[in-house]
Amino acid sequence: MKSDASSRRTSSLLLASIATAAVLTSVAPEAGAQESRRRRGGGQEAKPVELTPEQVGQLTKVANERKLNVDDLLAAAKTFMPSGRHDEYVLFASGGQSGQMFAIGVPSMRLLRSIAVFTPESWQGYGFSGPDDHVLKSLEINGKPVLWGDTHHPALSETNGDYDGQFLFIGDKANARLGVIDLRDWETKQIVKNPLTISDHGAAFVTPNTDYVIEGGQYATVLGYGYAPLEDYKKSYRGMVTMWKFDRTKGKIDIENSFALELPPYWQDLADAGKAASDGFFFINSFNVEMATGGIEKGNPPFEAGASKRDMDYLHIIDWKKAEAAFKGGKAKKINGFPVLMLDTSVAEGILYFAPEPKSPHGVDVTPNGQYMVVAGKLDPHVTVYSIEKIKAAIAAKKYSSTDDFGVPVLDFDAVKEAQVELGLGPLHTQFDDKGYAYTSLFLDSAVARWSLGGDYAKLHSEQPWKLVQKTSVQYNIGHLCAAEGDTVSPDGRFLISMSKWSVDRFLPTGPLLPQNFQLLDITQPGTTMPVIYDLPIGVGEPHYCQMIKADKLQTWKVYPEVGWNPATQRLDPNAPKPGQEGVTREGNKVLVKMVAVRSHFTPEHVEVNEGDEVTWRITAGETAQDATHGFCIGGYNINLSLEPGEFVECKFIADKPGTYPFYCTEFCSALHLEMAGYLHIKPKSQGAAAAGQDAPVATKAE
Amino acid sequence: MKSDASSRRTSSLLLASIATAAVLTSVAPEAGAQESRRRRGGGQEAKPVELTPEQVGQLTKVANERKLNVDDLLAAAKTFMPSGRHDEYVLFASGGQSGQMFAIGVPSMRLLRSIAVFTPESWQGYGFSGPDDHVLKSLEINGKPVLWGDTHHPALSETNGDYDGQFLFIGDKANARLGVIDLRDWETKQIVKNPLTISDHGAAFVTPNTDYVIEGGQYATVLGYGYAPLEDYKKSYRGMVTMWKFDRTKGKIDIENSFALELPPYWQDLADAGKAASDGFFFINSFNVEMATGGIEKGNPPFEAGASKRDMDYLHIIDWKKAEAAFKGGKAKKINGFPVLMLDTSVAEGILYFAPEPKSPHGVDVTPNGQYMVVAGKLDPHVTVYSIEKIKAAIAAKKYSSTDDFGVPVLDFDAVKEAQVELGLGPLHTQFDDKGYAYTSLFLDSAVARWSLGGDYAKLHSEQPWKLVQKTSVQYNIGHLCAAEGDTVSPDGRFLISMSKWSVDRFLPTGPLLPQNFQLLDITQPGTTMPVIYDLPIGVGEPHYCQMIKADKLQTWKVYPEVGWNPATQRLDPNAPKPGQEGVTREGNKVLVKMVAVRSHFTPEHVEVNEGDEVTWRITAGETAQDATHGFCIGGYNINLSLEPGEFVECKFIADKPGTYPFYCTEFCSALHLEMAGYLHIKPKSQGAAAAGQDAPVATKAE
Repeated sequence: MKSDASSRRTSSLLLASIATAAVLTSVAPEAGAQESRRRRGGGQEAKPVELTPEQVGQLTKVANERKLNVDDLLAAAKTFMPSGRHDEYVLFASGGQSGQMFAIGVPSMRLLRSIAVFTPESWQGYGFSGPDDHVLKSLEINGKPVLWGDTHHPALSETNGDYDGQFLFIGDKANARLGVIDLRDWETKQIVKNPLTISDHGAAFVTPNTDYVIEGGQYATVLGYGYAPLEDYKKSYRGMVTMWKFDRTKGKIDIENSFALELPPYWQDLADAGKAASDGFFFINSFNVEMATGGIEKGNPPFEAGASKRDMDYLHIIDWKKAEAAFKGGKAKKINGFPVLMLDTSVAEGILYFAPEPKSPHGVDVTPNGQYMVVAGKLDPHVTVYSIEKIKAAIAAKKYSSTDDFGVPVLDFDAVKEAQVELGLGPLHTQFDDKGYAYTSLFLDSAVARWSLGGDYAKLHSEQPWKLVQKTSVQYNIGHLCAAEGDTVSPDGRFLISMSKWSVDRFLPTGPLLPQNFQLLDITQPGTTMPVIYDLPIGVGEPHYCQMIKADKLQTWKVYPEVGWNPATQRLDPNAPKPGQEGVTREGNKVLVKMVAVRSHFTPEHVEVNEGDEVTWRITAGETAQDATHGFCIGGYNINLSLEPGEFVECKFIADKPGTYPFYCTEFCSALHLEMAGYLHIKPKSQGAAAAGQDAPVATKAE
Repeated sequence: MKSDASSRRTSSLLLASIATAAVLTSVAPEAGAQESRRRRGGGQEAKPVELTPEQVGQLTKVANERKLNVDDLLAAAKTFMPSGRHDEYVLFASGGQSGQMFAIGVPSMRLLRSIAVFTPESWQGYGFSGPDDHVLKSLEINGKPVLWGDTHHPALSETNGDYDGQFLFIGDKANARLGVIDLRDWETKQIVKNPLTISDHGAAFVTPNTDYVIEGGQYATVLGYGYAPLEDYKKSYRGMVTMWKFDRTKGKIDIENSFALELPPYWQDLADAGKAASDGFFFINSFNVEMATGGIEKGNPPFEAGASKRDMDYLHIIDWKKAEAAFKGGKAKKINGFPVLMLDTSVAEGILYFAPEPKSPHGVDVTPNGQYMVVAGKLDPHVTVYSIEKIKAAIAAKKYSSTDDFGVPVLDFDAVKEAQVELGLGPLHTQFDDKGYAYTSLFLDSAVARWSLGGDYAKLHSEQPWKLVQKTSVQYNIGHLCAAEGDTVSPDGRFLISMSKWSVDRFLPTGPLLPQNFQLLDITQPGTTMPVIYDLPIGVGEPHYCQMIKADKLQTWKVYPEVGWNPATQRLDPNAPKPGQEGVTREGNKVLVKMVAVRSHFTPEHVEVNEGDEVTWRITAGETAQDATHGFCIGGYNINLSLEPGEFVECKFIADKPGTYPFYCTEFCSALHLEMAGYLHIKPKSQGAAAAGQDAPVATKAE
């Protein structure tokens, strides 16, 4: 240790070189060292472990200090990720009322990243480029900013019924919108508003090659945002399902080639697309076929009772290839400018059929081979299994038990039903593994039920077909569940997520508002238990549903492909300033700032404009190293941009508040990050105010 | 298994009772069962574990399948939390540009909850009660909504220099604001805008009894939001530090009794309050005493170089008790209506002194006993330790080496310096344990250094005083660090967080925008290593600093104290509708909706208003069970409320878009959650439009 004056001089000499940008770029460790550290897996190269008695002693000591039992140690070993080791799966969970998506690594259950979709998010610079921000514009409904969403059901894009890792779709129940996320850069590329209804529920679900993204409705309404009193419910209210055509090349919904189907004013719920044996169909549950209209304050039964009176609701069976043909054949009518196949057309064309289903179901889930549809009637202790073969036969033979009030044929229940399996109270949703088992969430029992499939699946296991095998308790009140690759033609088994809606006492209290509890179950070995091996509090929203994809299917960009890339268009932007082009130019009261950001400075560092100027500010992030992200903000102007390596961004604002505004890098980028700053001067209109602090409404000089 | 028609009837009978609210309230498991499950710790009552050879074999098998070594197993055992077991500490981390706070459990490193502060957050219903939302109003700056923040430094409230678990303060660097969070319900109660500067940095830090919350500036500016060209920098630009008086009874900043100090236009950085031996003082680092003004585009040195030319910057030493006396004695002048002690006053009153400090430091950190101030000069490989005793003596003896350009006495460096300790490249920030060690982050080395303190601390350890003991590599580029209770008079040791700013390859790539890496270090045993035992990706913002508090110090409310509680006022609200008072009333075009929400219905379920009505909608959450949270949203109207047990909330909007709007519960609350809904009808003004779908601009009937 030196503490004399010479040490100060030495250090200053030494550090003079550190202050140069050339050295600072080396703060990102070189790839070789990273790789060696990553593979090291915590302490040393992985080789078969044999625990010595001393090591067992160390482990036992920690276990006893922390009051862990053997099951805890096993769960810890199954989920712990050594420093730098990557998770095997990514869980894409909706964020509920947060309006966002969350990506979680499995098995470590670490929240890897949020993805902003329906709610402006400043870390990602999403919706913070000024009043004309394209995200803010895309979130307007009827000219009104609607800056949040209630994200419910994510759907990964599929090829041949298998997740392909390219796109992610997510519905906004509150406002009937659909978001499209590109999984190369994990950013939202499109928001589509449904032109028929204000709110929905059953979105998003994709057909096996992502030809269409399905958005089902929920609370019946007057299609096209119309008004009608509840007395006219049966006459004027309708359900709907919208089929959004997806253009994979453009990475966007092709609105021109999309259409909807009018449905009776039952409350449609979740959907699932057929695949393999049932390709060409999709299925939607419904509840409130009673057409109850509530009104507890008028002495009517509240919805919770009125909508639960009948024993059976209707599974909606939709032949979407026939629907597509009818739409292309010009048989749709327009509501609010959007093509809709009206009910009479769907009936006449053989597009829509119903099958009775036990009351108030939530999920309908198609088995990986497409042969069976599993309906979980939340007020019935059974799941009911339908056979596509039987459905097709019943349709062909017109085995109808009745026709509903809107002319839709109702198939005979016993003719289409394959099985019913008694599982317990409150079954909601079903997922599948690779060994012939199904897994159903039981909300009221707070449990996950494993049960055996029949038919072709019976040869994969040694159980009786269609039979409850075991249950695992979860904490508490599970809603949806999700198995690894569980919505595909080839699920993986291994891991299952219980999306437990109430956590109550499971975590430290976080105020009256508590997190949900994502619980990880090990479902590897059907012969044994399926223990809960991790509890993850979700305190950033209330996810409703998730899908889990093998991590190696994702082809994520590490940096943008070229410097000057515009993520909104996914191509190089001709407006992106290149080094040497930086500067400030003016035409009338329109000011254009061209800026480049690179460790550790912005060029230019001074920008002066006049009060009232319209400012367009373009920034290219000149970085090409992974994780060399900058930010850019102007205080008081509601502007914050995320400048990821290679990214081009633009913000616009009216310089209506004169003053001295520091701008700075908001993402810690180097040892000289704090010095990555500059000044925006907005010169007051009044001449006398040009002197410091004398513009009365803005600044008051010391009195 | 029964699959015949009788099973359907049986199930319907069985479930008829489930559909009643009385049964549904029991979905929250009773407390006894919870407690038994929680204590169970995963599988069985905790008792001393002795691993049998078979169990060792099971563990070894999992370890080998997952390529874990012994260090990994130990790390897993030290961090894994069995289902239902509570973490020991809560880490309150700023959320950087997300504008929020994040609470993380330690040692499990699970994100327990976000707390919305500067950015509207819809899950928490924060800023989503309509255009007049009180949060939105509190976020306006100069009449402009600024709906994000760059949160940097959280400060837990203290009593006698120890965290008391009552309040949490957080600064917004981008917009120079301070947020106050009440840790009973973990909600933001106040946003205060600094009247002197647009942006700041050094906030928040508290005095040992939370008399004041300290908000330091950063980029010098014209105080009072003024304009002056950079040519007038020395004349017109100033730094500042604001002392916000905190009223613990009201839980709010007392703006009337707050004041600021004018400082020279150096760029002030982080602060720390003295305690014990140094109580009554606080300390602020600075950089850019060069008063460089940048301008790379004009051929000037960029800030990164210009602000790093001199060997030494100035540690600001402020006697805040003298400052308070001067303020109370009427010696402040007003800038923009806010009292400021001008530089000449601070010099004359002996309030402000400087001490030289090695160039461009970031953190100044006071040892737990208050005797030493540790300065980490990020461009100097040493930390420099100052003694309060020596500072006081030098002030008394007027041992000045110079006076700066603004008349501030500069204390002689050697007279106030206690020690310098060479640690490595890029030291930023220092924390302390209970065994006489300090821990400093090394940004450029990507390491945490442990070093020995001297003075009274030397008796706690067996090292040479003021000496580097060891380093642990972290991944990568650590900014701040945080030890358990590390900013208090009695730190705990045990755990330390490395806030590693770059993660690069440590996690699955999440697009060009990557998470940060919070790494947990076990610092329990100074004699051995201090290994990294957990890597946590932070993909929801870029936290800058955090504080870690013992969980049992928090007195969190599990539900609101009474039904009808208004969290904004923290008392029962006389406007909260009680059961029996529900209904819709009208005065002119003003409509008042009084609603009660209880599982599983809203009362009323029907609300009809006219186009153009001004609607005030009051809702009481009638629940008293922990975690029985509801939500309330109206699609298309940007309204979402979080109705926590007992909470009263109000939203207001102009019903300017006619139509049929379902409202529903947005937080999964029971098996009949989907039925917890109703209809808002906004009747069009035009008579002819009253029929369904005929109001042309709103809905288009099928063509």
